[in-house]
Amino acid sequence: MTRLTSEDDFLALLDRHFPRAHPGVILGRGDDAAVVACPDRLCLTKDLFIEDVHFRRAYFSPADVGYKALAVNLSDVAAMGGRPAGFLLGLVCPEGTDREYWDAAMAAMAALAARFDLPLVGGDLVRGDKIGISVTVWGAAGPSGRFLTRGSAAAGDVLFVVGALGLARVGLSVLEKDGPDAAGSWPAAVAAHLRPEPRVAEGLVLAGLPGVAACMDVSDGLARDLPRFLPPGCGADIFFAPAGLPPEVTAHAAGHGRPPEKAAMFGGEDYALLAAAPPAVWPEVRRALPAARAVGVVTPKPGFTLNGQPFDARGFDHFG
Amino acid sequence: MTRLTSEDDFLALLDRHFPRAHPGVILGRGDDAAVVACPDRLCLTKDLFIEDVHFRRAYFSPADVGYKALAVNLSDVAAMGGRPAGFLLGLVCPEGTDREYWDAAMAAMAALAARFDLPLVGGDLVRGDKIGISVTVWGAAGPSGRFLTRGSAAAGDVLFVVGALGLARVGLSVLEKDGPDAAGSWPAAVAAHLRPEPRVAEGLVLAGLPGVAACMDVSDGLARDLPRFLPPGCGADIFFAPAGLPPEVTAHAAGHGRPPEKAAMFGGEDYALLAAAPPAVWPEVRRALPAARAVGVVTPKPGFTLNGQPFDARGFDHFG
Repeated sequence: MTRLTSEDDFLALLDRHFPRAHPGVILGRGDDAAVVACPDRLCLTKDLFIEDVHFRRAYFSPADVGYKALAVNLSDVAAMGGRPAGFLLGLVCPEGTDREYWDAAMAAMAALAARFDLPLVGGDLVRGDKIGISVTVWGAAGPSGRFLTRGSAAAGDVLFVVGALGLARVGLSVLEKDGPDAAGSWPAAVAAHLRPEPRVAEGLVLAGLPGVAACMDVSDGLARDLPRFLPPGCGADIFFAPAGLPPEVTAHAAGHGRPPEKAAMFGGEDYALLAAAPPAVWPEVRRALPAARAVGVVTPKPGFTLNGQPFDARGFDHFG
Repeated sequence: MTRLTSEDDFLALLDRHFPRAHPGVILGRGDDAAVVACPDRLCLTKDLFIEDVHFRRAYFSPADVGYKALAVNLSDVAAMGGRPAGFLLGLVCPEGTDREYWDAAMAAMAALAARFDLPLVGGDLVRGDKIGISVTVWGAAGPSGRFLTRGSAAAGDVLFVVGALGLARVGLSVLEKDGPDAAGSWPAAVAAHLRPEPRVAEGLVLAGLPGVAACMDVSDGLARDLPRFLPPGCGADIFFAPAGLPPEVTAHAAGHGRPPEKAAMFGGEDYALLAAAPPAVWPEVRRALPAARAVGVVTPKPGFTLNGQPFDARGFDHFG
């Protein structure tokens, strides 16, 4: 273990992992602010990733922490149908986290950033009691020139998702219970929780289909996110065939005597894309994005049903 | 005391203080990301403001916390000669902070944002052990079209500051010793620490003077920030006449048997602007910005002197 003894020491560590130069960066790290080249519109988002709130060191490796802190922000840009363009990083580093810890965390973050060609242009660094990572990502519209928003679906639209539902929540449960060993029995669920995939390519495809009306990323469970997704006055009928659910969700629910559909409804941190398109456009969505799975239909009245039964549309509240 | 019981509750609180609509905002708070209109170049910065690292609740009122968290970020844009254009907010809210606390904090932040016509376009909100505020601000170049950077000064340039040096550090000392009562005897120092003024107008003036070569904000003390400001290979001769120092800095130094010039050199969190201009341009700077005070000259060799004596250019390290 090697202690990080100064800010300059940490900044040198960042320099080893994140290149300073990038075609879109006019002035990179090291000044009071960075200067970047922009299109006429940008999307911007910021998510916090805090120890013992969003992750535990007991079963998140340093690399998992670095990866996920950035991934959840990229997912927000993906949900806009945008192309991420760069990011800022605020780090709270407890005394007990050494150079090796941050080397591993930043290497994983840098690898994810490199996949999307994202420069790290600046940020802030402080000591604190627990690890805290604050990421700000900005992005541009894709070739379609448009961003996808919430609230633009209409009654009759097909609701569909890209990505698994409920799997990350199963991962959280088994990690809390068994720690890192859980990966042996629940590899998909653990991966979904530790290493969510930001669905940037899929979001860009959706933005490129003019019929697609709305998109968001499901971070708090479909039950809680659907009301945020739908326009006022609308509801949804959701249909989940158990056969369409991830096997580990089905197996975990069976082990706890719960219906697997509810696990899929109330999961959290899936970072799947939820989107809506008129029925006439749905075949085109399927062709362009074979991974898209219809999960229901938008109804013209508030209220939700799951496989024909009313359900209470509440999920996880960060204040609960 | 009223508990904030849910995220929606907190978001409603934010809505009371921060208008959603703004001419530069295409899509405001409430979606996965905000969409804003941009010029061809933006400056971006992000600073953390963390309880017991950057502030103590013992002597920061909630309003001081809300104000300063945003102000220190605006100072970074000011140091670029930029015009702040909007911001994102990440909040860590401990259980013990109630509605009244955040109402007061957000009211003060909103008042500062309103002074600079800044929309709050989004962010994140979590529970945690200590108050944490992560702000990201972006800005555009002013009418001059240029941003001011560090490292562009040249040997012979006049070094000048806009704002007091050492005063905020005195404020910290007396607040740590006497708590809020310190404001009675040390009003300017306490105000400098709790309510630093982001010198946006002054930065824009400097960016509009073509001869001004470089600018930064002095956040860690001149001694530590000068090496970051000067180009490699350069040094500086600094001259402080005691008569030119803030009276409270002089009085505090006298009370501790220290030279007041050193207090001005090693202070921190002043958020004064430090800039450089060739001697021929200096009169023009004085005319445009009467508050600018020359503090020294850039020398062609590394190393620093203070009133003719060499000094060790170290200041505050956040990891120290």
